[in-house]
Amino acid sequence: MTWTLAGRAAGLNPSVIREILKVTERPGVISLAGGLPSPRTFPIAEFAAASATVLERDGSAALQYAASEGYRPLREFVAERLPWEVDPEHVLITTGSQQGLDLVAKVLVDEGSRVLVETPTYLGALQAFSPFGARVAGVRSDDEGLLPDTLAAAAGQGADRARFLYVLPTFQNPTGRMLGEQRRARLVEVAAEIGLPLVEDNPYGELWFDNPPPAPLAARNPDGVLYLGSFSKVLAPGLRLGFVVAPGDVFPKLLQAKQAADLHSPGFNQRMVHEVVRGGFLDHHVPTIRTLYRAQRDHMLAALEREFGGGGTSWNVPAGGMFLWLRLPEGVDALELLPLAVEAGVAFVPGGPFFATDPDPRAMRLSFVTAGPDEIDTAVAALARVVGARRA
Amino acid sequence: MTWTLAGRAAGLNPSVIREILKVTERPGVISLAGGLPSPRTFPIAEFAAASATVLERDGSAALQYAASEGYRPLREFVAERLPWEVDPEHVLITTGSQQGLDLVAKVLVDEGSRVLVETPTYLGALQAFSPFGARVAGVRSDDEGLLPDTLAAAAGQGADRARFLYVLPTFQNPTGRMLGEQRRARLVEVAAEIGLPLVEDNPYGELWFDNPPPAPLAARNPDGVLYLGSFSKVLAPGLRLGFVVAPGDVFPKLLQAKQAADLHSPGFNQRMVHEVVRGGFLDHHVPTIRTLYRAQRDHMLAALEREFGGGGTSWNVPAGGMFLWLRLPEGVDALELLPLAVEAGVAFVPGGPFFATDPDPRAMRLSFVTAGPDEIDTAVAALARVVGARRA
Repeated sequence: MTWTLAGRAAGLNPSVIREILKVTERPGVISLAGGLPSPRTFPIAEFAAASATVLERDGSAALQYAASEGYRPLREFVAERLPWEVDPEHVLITTGSQQGLDLVAKVLVDEGSRVLVETPTYLGALQAFSPFGARVAGVRSDDEGLLPDTLAAAAGQGADRARFLYVLPTFQNPTGRMLGEQRRARLVEVAAEIGLPLVEDNPYGELWFDNPPPAPLAARNPDGVLYLGSFSKVLAPGLRLGFVVAPGDVFPKLLQAKQAADLHSPGFNQRMVHEVVRGGFLDHHVPTIRTLYRAQRDHMLAALEREFGGGGTSWNVPAGGMFLWLRLPEGVDALELLPLAVEAGVAFVPGGPFFATDPDPRAMRLSFVTAGPDEIDTAVAALARVVGARRA
Repeated sequence: MTWTLAGRAAGLNPSVIREILKVTERPGVISLAGGLPSPRTFPIAEFAAASATVLERDGSAALQYAASEGYRPLREFVAERLPWEVDPEHVLITTGSQQGLDLVAKVLVDEGSRVLVETPTYLGALQAFSPFGARVAGVRSDDEGLLPDTLAAAAGQGADRARFLYVLPTFQNPTGRMLGEQRRARLVEVAAEIGLPLVEDNPYGELWFDNPPPAPLAARNPDGVLYLGSFSKVLAPGLRLGFVVAPGDVFPKLLQAKQAADLHSPGFNQRMVHEVVRGGFLDHHVPTIRTLYRAQRDHMLAALEREFGGGGTSWNVPAGGMFLWLRLPEGVDALELLPLAVEAGVAFVPGGPFFATDPDPRAMRLSFVTAGPDEIDTAVAALARVVGARRA
């Protein structure tokens, strides 16, 4: 029997991160690789209470087929919590924000369509866009995020005009960097001038350490920005709930794509999350995540300073989120380093796969939220040893 | 701001059923339209207990990111329960079996690919295949399902060769019909002869009323059949859990497509379902669904005989599942009848949308599981009145 695969199946590839995570499951390896929220932040007791309440009060509806748009009270909660005027009718609940990326590509990307991304960008977005035939082009970026004045040249002309720019302006995965107020304002201005739609992904925005980040891009031009959000980092990823806020022109098609993709996101999960958050739970829960993650970041920064200080290794100081971006000394390749590091008991994600083009072989992503403080010390020390050995 | 939609967005359309269901939400309308399992069959207490157990025993893992393949014990349960030898490594847990259809199309359908379906077929499959550019062709079928000997002619040649035949052989949605043993054997034989892969969808197979259905197609040729299953009809649809059993050639690509689509199905839900089913719960639960649905079917058959007997209206006697297929007298169009029926307090789904080509305007789908016995009596009587008035 011959199964003929679609051409787009060639654009589907095993995630590099996923393959790395498999290796790191071996005992004795401390992983700074995965983007896993600390399980210490999961409100297990609240979920248990919410689950019991939902099933007792509303079990039949929670377990039945439901509207593709999502559970109306949760859509209203999302709309009210966002810092600009959002019509709940424009909120689509998705099966994690990864599904939002898949639906966006399904609805906006033709075979060969140009799509702009930051340099580097979120790997999961590249994986979602690629099977729909996106030709992804990186926009020039520096340590503070993308350079808005390079956008017009990157956007292309006529039939080759980019369908959208995908941007993760706040505590980006993989770099942890944040786009500041001036660049945000300029980005939205340039995008409006050249008529370029923006797709803003904001799973980490609430995880700030010192000051809240500037307003989202969507708040500045709701008709020109499609906004993706998630409950994965403020509650728990295992319920797979995210959302899209889409302009009126795009919402109906996203909704139809959602219906074809999985009919609707689990109604039980939507009600559970709504039950947990409806009384203001996030207002005191999210600050506890911020405090924990800031302490973890500081711990990793101290370890890096202790182990790598004065050498040729550099890293940034993220103002929020879960990741830090490290650059190895000249001549040391992160991908080549990885097996040696795993051998020494530490895993990370090489930076290369996050680049649409021209990967930086010296870059790596480190998560500072999954491993505990002692593990971070051990892992960073091991990493320093293998880097030192590699240079010697 | 101009959002340019992908060409495939034109292939996305609001579901006819969905639009009908909106109308039927008005008070006083009894719906025989939706394919909603009876909420009386939802094991709410068991889910409540399972949820508490999972969160207490395994909360951190249940709420964390997880493997795209699914929760290993649930994959093993699925493999063991299926009536042929299935390697758990070939089981992919999906976010409802609708996602299975979306992933299958993503991986197997190119723009313009010929895909074969029954006449009529499941509307959700047409919706899943269409945005990926499938050119869907109906295979000749009668009251007992598709005619295997017409398959070779329908399969096409060379570049136009069909990528697969999508078939729902057991208590089909929309007709409730079942493909018998001889046709199954012949279908698998013909498909193997001409090298045509089969995609078998089996959400209703456990809901038999008198005798178990013949073995699935996949049991007869596991390498030539991709099998879709669901927990929606034996437990509850609101958890959105289904599965795909895929041959070795296709599994890795489906898995990568799954990862790009939503990373993984909710781990919490997977553990909850596993906790409910692992002790043999389905062995005594599913028979109670069968008993209930058989009684509901019989009640609807009696009402139809009473109200329509001796007229020009005909219907089948499904041996399982949730649906019955009714054919109106000559000259009465189901789509035109619908607004009059809703006015009279009853809703159904016109048969037309279920046909890839050449719709039967006189056909309609009736669900016998959602409305209770008294409602069925009232609804069928109302339907008979509007049909009678239409003919007069």
